[in-house]
Amino acid sequence: MSEWCMENPENIVINVDKGHYVHLINVEQYLSPLSGKPSALLILNQKIDIAEVFLEIWHHYKLKVCADGGANRLYELFGDDESARSRYLPDYIVGDLDSLDVEVEKYYKRKNVVIIRQFTQYSTDFSKCLDVIALHWTSPMFVQKVRSSTEENHSIELYDGLATWRKNLDFNGGIKINTLALGGINGRFDQTIHSISQLYQLSSDRSQFNLCYLSSTDLIFLIPSKGTLLTYSKEFRQACIGNCGLLPLGLPTVLQETRGLKWDVGNWPTSVQEGRVSSSNRFVGENKCLLRTKDSVVISVEIHIANLKNFL
Amino acid sequence: MSEWCMENPENIVINVDKGHYVHLINVEQYLSPLSGKPSALLILNQKIDIAEVFLEIWHHYKLKVCADGGANRLYELFGDDESARSRYLPDYIVGDLDSLDVEVEKYYKRKNVVIIRQFTQYSTDFSKCLDVIALHWTSPMFVQKVRSSTEENHSIELYDGLATWRKNLDFNGGIKINTLALGGINGRFDQTIHSISQLYQLSSDRSQFNLCYLSSTDLIFLIPSKGTLLTYSKEFRQACIGNCGLLPLGLPTVLQETRGLKWDVGNWPTSVQEGRVSSSNRFVGENKCLLRTKDSVVISVEIHIANLKNFL
Repeated sequence: MSEWCMENPENIVINVDKGHYVHLINVEQYLSPLSGKPSALLILNQKIDIAEVFLEIWHHYKLKVCADGGANRLYELFGDDESARSRYLPDYIVGDLDSLDVEVEKYYKRKNVVIIRQFTQYSTDFSKCLDVIALHWTSPMFVQKVRSSTEENHSIELYDGLATWRKNLDFNGGIKINTLALGGINGRFDQTIHSISQLYQLSSDRSQFNLCYLSSTDLIFLIPSKGTLLTYSKEFRQACIGNCGLLPLGLPTVLQETRGLKWDVGNWPTSVQEGRVSSSNRFVGENKCLLRTKDSVVISVEIHIANLKNFL
Repeated sequence: MSEWCMENPENIVINVDKGHYVHLINVEQYLSPLSGKPSALLILNQKIDIAEVFLEIWHHYKLKVCADGGANRLYELFGDDESARSRYLPDYIVGDLDSLDVEVEKYYKRKNVVIIRQFTQYSTDFSKCLDVIALHWTSPMFVQKVRSSTEENHSIELYDGLATWRKNLDFNGGIKINTLALGGINGRFDQTIHSISQLYQLSSDRSQFNLCYLSSTDLIFLIPSKGTLLTYSKEFRQACIGNCGLLPLGLPTVLQETRGLKWDVGNWPTSVQEGRVSSSNRFVGENKCLLRTKDSVVISVEIHIANLKNFL
């Protein structure tokens, strides 16, 4: 069938048969995950640029982890407000700790935050944090050990103890950990692309993670192949969502069918190098949007941060 | 041949035969292009985040173009300093002008800046600016017409007059226009990827442009296939260059050979979706680095902006 593209009105009602998609993603749940499920807020080493809603988001996440210097950014966020700082303590600080300020380390140590150093340079601070998040949510023994240990590095072997421990754990599917990462986008560009590549790597059915990035402008996550139904409330869309882009950053692919975008397409080859990318598009499906793509693509959803407060 | 990866010392001397590369790129020339060649500084609609070196860079570029609201950002940069503002006037402001502030438009009109409106939504403000830059450097008749015209829109047809004019021009290779774009990276993520896709699109031998982005952290440009020798002065590398990344954003490809990186590789498959990306790497070749890749890849070169001043 040949490719097509059509322009839709600003609000349309979409009816989608269950046979058309495999994955169901609710956009709002990336910001306020269901309380009955495992979740983690991951703070990477970049200035926290969503300060106006940071505290609200914080309360929605059960586990908070700082990647190395990410702890400096959390610390700095509170300025001179010692009282606030002491109420927003991460559960873990993890990394090779070459970026963690001495004063910040001392402070969080005093507050009994679990600080785990891992020297290996064969994985990034980001990956080391994923290890801790996975261990936290699947191994009660791990949690007990690091909390109770009085030994150096909470009894975790200093080189790559976390990765080794995690490798020995069994994980065959099961409930995924909703993980929101701050600071992965809009820093050094090679690090941004490293973050994007994590989306693809963590997209397999066997992955323990459901990962999303929040920057000062966008939510960024993966649309897996085989059909995805994106849902959101009508009110959230109107107040908080701006433009969106379907970004074939893994490889050129085909947008097989979209339903609910301002510019819907079908059988539409998309490629960064050919300059065929659906960007500056937007959701017009009243409360949902169907996206079927031959291969997984990254989606960026513009978020009006200032309007988020009423929805958190 | 099987893939390899090796770690180099911090400073190595590279000798490269002319047969090993087709393209020669000098990193410093992206910031201070040769004065005898056509060049353009393109200001996109994003806060100018390299204010500390902006004025120095400005003087190195012969032509300055603001894309629509990019003119607001230039205007704002000078705050209350009217004198400075009036000394840094762009040559053109181009776009559908839906983002250009009324006051800013009035100001630059009064200062005789050529403001050209193009209504078509089938190309972006970015592309419309490329049209103007190409016309400026290849058509003396165009320059004369827009400068002397007293008619509406400088006699340029309002819908897509620039693109139409440009299509009728002959350009078969020839000298490329060194174009540095500010504000293309680190805004909305779909726009960042649109910027990246422009690098690929403008990389053909027939393109009139040699395009590079400068963000607050990186220089970002394309490494074309068939071998590229990157050169830089030893002093510039030491003072201004940090990490680099070779980013296969067009499609998965192979790094056939690198010489002069901290971690050199050969026959090395690279793919965003497989998580095999050479990031957080750096130049250790004293004053050059050879990059041979099966397909074009994007390179990000971390720049210590604060140290740039001595080299501009």
